[in-house]
Amino acid sequence: MSEHLRRLSLNQKTTNAWSLKEAVDGCLRHGIQSIGVWREPVADIGLDKAQRLIRDAGLRVSSLCRGGFLTAEGAAARQHALEENKRAIDEASALNADCLVMVVGGLPLGSRDLPAARSRVADLLDELVPMAADQGVRLALEPMHPIFTADRGVLATLGEALDLAEKYPAETVGVVVDSFHVWWDPQLEAQVARASNRIASFQVCDWITPLPADTLLSRGIMGDGHIDFHHHYDLVTRAGYHGDIEVEIFNADVWAANPDTVLALIKQRTLTQVLPPTT
Amino acid sequence: MSEHLRRLSLNQKTTNAWSLKEAVDGCLRHGIQSIGVWREPVADIGLDKAQRLIRDAGLRVSSLCRGGFLTAEGAAARQHALEENKRAIDEASALNADCLVMVVGGLPLGSRDLPAARSRVADLLDELVPMAADQGVRLALEPMHPIFTADRGVLATLGEALDLAEKYPAETVGVVVDSFHVWWDPQLEAQVARASNRIASFQVCDWITPLPADTLLSRGIMGDGHIDFHHHYDLVTRAGYHGDIEVEIFNADVWAANPDTVLALIKQRTLTQVLPPTT
Repeated sequence: MSEHLRRLSLNQKTTNAWSLKEAVDGCLRHGIQSIGVWREPVADIGLDKAQRLIRDAGLRVSSLCRGGFLTAEGAAARQHALEENKRAIDEASALNADCLVMVVGGLPLGSRDLPAARSRVADLLDELVPMAADQGVRLALEPMHPIFTADRGVLATLGEALDLAEKYPAETVGVVVDSFHVWWDPQLEAQVARASNRIASFQVCDWITPLPADTLLSRGIMGDGHIDFHHHYDLVTRAGYHGDIEVEIFNADVWAANPDTVLALIKQRTLTQVLPPTT
Repeated sequence: MSEHLRRLSLNQKTTNAWSLKEAVDGCLRHGIQSIGVWREPVADIGLDKAQRLIRDAGLRVSSLCRGGFLTAEGAAARQHALEENKRAIDEASALNADCLVMVVGGLPLGSRDLPAARSRVADLLDELVPMAADQGVRLALEPMHPIFTADRGVLATLGEALDLAEKYPAETVGVVVDSFHVWWDPQLEAQVARASNRIASFQVCDWITPLPADTLLSRGIMGDGHIDFHHHYDLVTRAGYHGDIEVEIFNADVWAANPDTVLALIKQRTLTQVLPPTT
């Protein structure tokens, strides 16, 4: 394993066919030292077992995916979102995750009131921040590509995420810089610089065209699309980020491939497409 | 025809199966007083004939689509883009169009240098503005939804379009506010207000989910998706825009329907979904 890859983290969605145990074993087999885990596969084996598994393997947990979904209307939905996020915060704490990724949710069914959905996010965040601070968990607000504004994440730009985050201490509320979600933004350079010590997670995967029919599975392996990852690496590095580089790929073809082949490929592509050339 | 619909314009892409003559006849049959035309169907019958056809019908021309595609690399491509846009400007002048819609183009094949592509747009615009001013034509920069940044339009936000436009007189360089392209933007309210007398065109069509497999044909009829058009109407009106409201829908189902049925439907939806309720 190249020393250059010591910051590589496997988000387990990239190897979607694998259980958490298989993903942890895969990381060990490939010399990957960090993992981004999802709540559902953790729940499949139980939090205690997941915790032991990861600790015994000596892996860092670069992120827990995901909290959020804060946009539903009404008191009952609000209460449900708070409880669900409280559980996610507890899990992030137990797993010693660097952050809990927050996908804030889209427009409620039948609603067209985007400003109202956004203000519900701000409102619930206000309640969640003290819970996260109590547990020493960092919430990482994830701006999502505007292709997902309607149905997944009303937080559409890094600037908007920072406007929200900056009301709270940086150690409790950060942001995710996910190349796929932010690469198109004309303010990318300025907003990554502004993000500075708020960058809680740096995720990479490519924007490919033509876009696959299922937009949720439209993410490519670095180098297969249009994103200049070296540029993004430079931006987050200059902003002071030196944490893990998490590869998170939702793609039906990648999921259908042999996960060991995928791990070998993302290691190679991280070296050639993301990290600066070694001289 | 309701007086309330006097500002409705049919962008002829909405009735893609119709020739320009059929679209003009359709407008007359349905009492629609304005049309947005495309260069290709104009070329099909020749500019002089198109000009007479529209003038004799007494229709306004709310826009000519389209100029742009300014991002290609190299001197030959640059020269080609200038010549093509010069022709488009001449046509917009001949047709007495309110504006020439500028779709600026995506990343050149194989390039990942988004800032460079954007700076080529600024560079060519600098040459095109005097040509447009000479002909009394208004260029309308169209920010496109970030789903199209890679392959169609590197201009991704209204703010970015205004940064470009504001270097020139408002009567020569304006912007398009197309609901489909800008609805997700957290800065929408601020940027439409800023746009003020630069709003050269207000286009409407809906963001629908799930997104159709061909993203180019993913636009819905107003009311079928997630956009609050009343809100957009209020924003552009408060910004001082009182021009045409152009319905431009790229959608395979709409294109397969009887165009007369489509015209009746967009009239109804413009009344119920876009214009303020009559009291």
